[in-house]
Amino acid sequence: MRIARFGNGRIGVVVDDDQIVDVTDSVGVQPQEWPPVGPLRLIADFDRHAEALKKAAADGERLPLSSVPLLTPVPWPNKVIAFPVNYHDHGKEMRAGYRADRQGFFLKPPSALSGAGEPVVLPHLPGREVHHESELGIVIGKGGRGIAAADWRDHVFGYACLLDMVVRGREERVFRKAYDTFCPVGPWITTADEVGDPTALEMQLWVNDELRQHANTRDLVLDIPGMIEMASAVMTLHPGDIIATGTPAGVGPVSDGDTIRIRIDRVGEMSVPVRQGDAGATPAFAEPYQLEIAK
Amino acid sequence: MRIARFGNGRIGVVVDDDQIVDVTDSVGVQPQEWPPVGPLRLIADFDRHAEALKKAAADGERLPLSSVPLLTPVPWPNKVIAFPVNYHDHGKEMRAGYRADRQGFFLKPPSALSGAGEPVVLPHLPGREVHHESELGIVIGKGGRGIAAADWRDHVFGYACLLDMVVRGREERVFRKAYDTFCPVGPWITTADEVGDPTALEMQLWVNDELRQHANTRDLVLDIPGMIEMASAVMTLHPGDIIATGTPAGVGPVSDGDTIRIRIDRVGEMSVPVRQGDAGATPAFAEPYQLEIAK
Repeated sequence: MRIARFGNGRIGVVVDDDQIVDVTDSVGVQPQEWPPVGPLRLIADFDRHAEALKKAAADGERLPLSSVPLLTPVPWPNKVIAFPVNYHDHGKEMRAGYRADRQGFFLKPPSALSGAGEPVVLPHLPGREVHHESELGIVIGKGGRGIAAADWRDHVFGYACLLDMVVRGREERVFRKAYDTFCPVGPWITTADEVGDPTALEMQLWVNDELRQHANTRDLVLDIPGMIEMASAVMTLHPGDIIATGTPAGVGPVSDGDTIRIRIDRVGEMSVPVRQGDAGATPAFAEPYQLEIAK
Repeated sequence: MRIARFGNGRIGVVVDDDQIVDVTDSVGVQPQEWPPVGPLRLIADFDRHAEALKKAAADGERLPLSSVPLLTPVPWPNKVIAFPVNYHDHGKEMRAGYRADRQGFFLKPPSALSGAGEPVVLPHLPGREVHHESELGIVIGKGGRGIAAADWRDHVFGYACLLDMVVRGREERVFRKAYDTFCPVGPWITTADEVGDPTALEMQLWVNDELRQHANTRDLVLDIPGMIEMASAVMTLHPGDIIATGTPAGVGPVSDGDTIRIRIDRVGEMSVPVRQGDAGATPAFAEPYQLEIAK
């Protein structure tokens, strides 16, 4: 099942690739609720809602998918966990002296989440590049602490495309990755049963029509079971928590007017426009910085 | 006003230093709601609730404060923002090559939040020290993006004592600070009107009866207006967001059976027991590490 969030916070099921059925009323989500935690309750209680969802998706009125603005599917998770340097080729291009299996994770703020229908807004930071990082996103279903790697499947609700945008520099990594709209997730959540085995998913990212990143999840340094085990060794995972699994080689800058397109086998594809904004200046980014990528 | 959370998620107002009045029903918070976002709605709508709260606090039945287990006041914020190396003397002891005004912030996961009535549970990590860091916590009231330093007062709801616990090492900072119970906040939120000017608050931290940290918020590198400006330059702040303002010199290890006591002028005081747990091992912490503190 492909579960989307759209409009003013409504929930929809995507059918036949280009249509969506509004199932908001069947799952008891209140659009415009603040804070927007209805999707968390839906994920936590999914077994209870599954039949009603299927029925509503089969019987409900279909709208053209292109007619609805897609929002990020889980806007207020407990946390967004991200694994740095989790593909060997990206480690080489960044000349990183570590890998995710020895370094642990960092966090992105939920306020950075945006959807497939929303632009990435570049902060006004002269002398700084903002780079795209193409990633598979995991959405946690059943929470827990101390989850064994072997039990990982019991805890994955679904998958989504995820862009981990970053200002390059030497400042705190989290700070450089925290701007509003720096974590597009979408276009929807594809539930785990529909994706099947996630250990050999092709992932591609284009800027405009140029292929910039192309990888396969089989090349992850720390694999999906390992990430769930490591994250839950440290923190209680909650339904709706998002894991950004790391980016492969090919990161690079984006500019005003670009379009970033990300596609992952059986998960989905989304195209996100890039716009230059006029906010976001801070003295901490006053010094210019240019990343030299190793070839 | 001193607003506490206790029991199974009830809201109370602390009166006469040693008593608490249960005001849960007056403010429409549902105890045991999941996710626990009632306190966020209370903070966002505080002006609407203030009269009812005052009346309930004056008229309601008083319970001995010592009879209720205190929980963390805001358990599911959008984010917990933390400023590293924000006192010069701590920068010296850590031999840090940067300060918060040039480095930006990092994040702690909301799952790490715990309350004054709960222990800090040490993970089972042989060869690693867990250190206390004593900090003033700010709770955001009115949210926003691009808040000018001069307008900081309009956005602060209140203050609390905050312990930023950390496993020492060279791994990702966020990872080392993310364990469950590694962010005690409490004993309650003291609203901004009751604290008054926060620019010269004395803060002390004891382990058992030994004074380990003693500082004044006047010595912050990046001051409170500056932190709100920097955080909101990057991210939309939401009601209930928490800012950990950084720790002064004197950080050091804690062990099973210790008690950490933190006290901040006009904000509050709490004593948190430390217990050794048996969870939390991960291969990323397999290498031993000893921090050498500069004198």
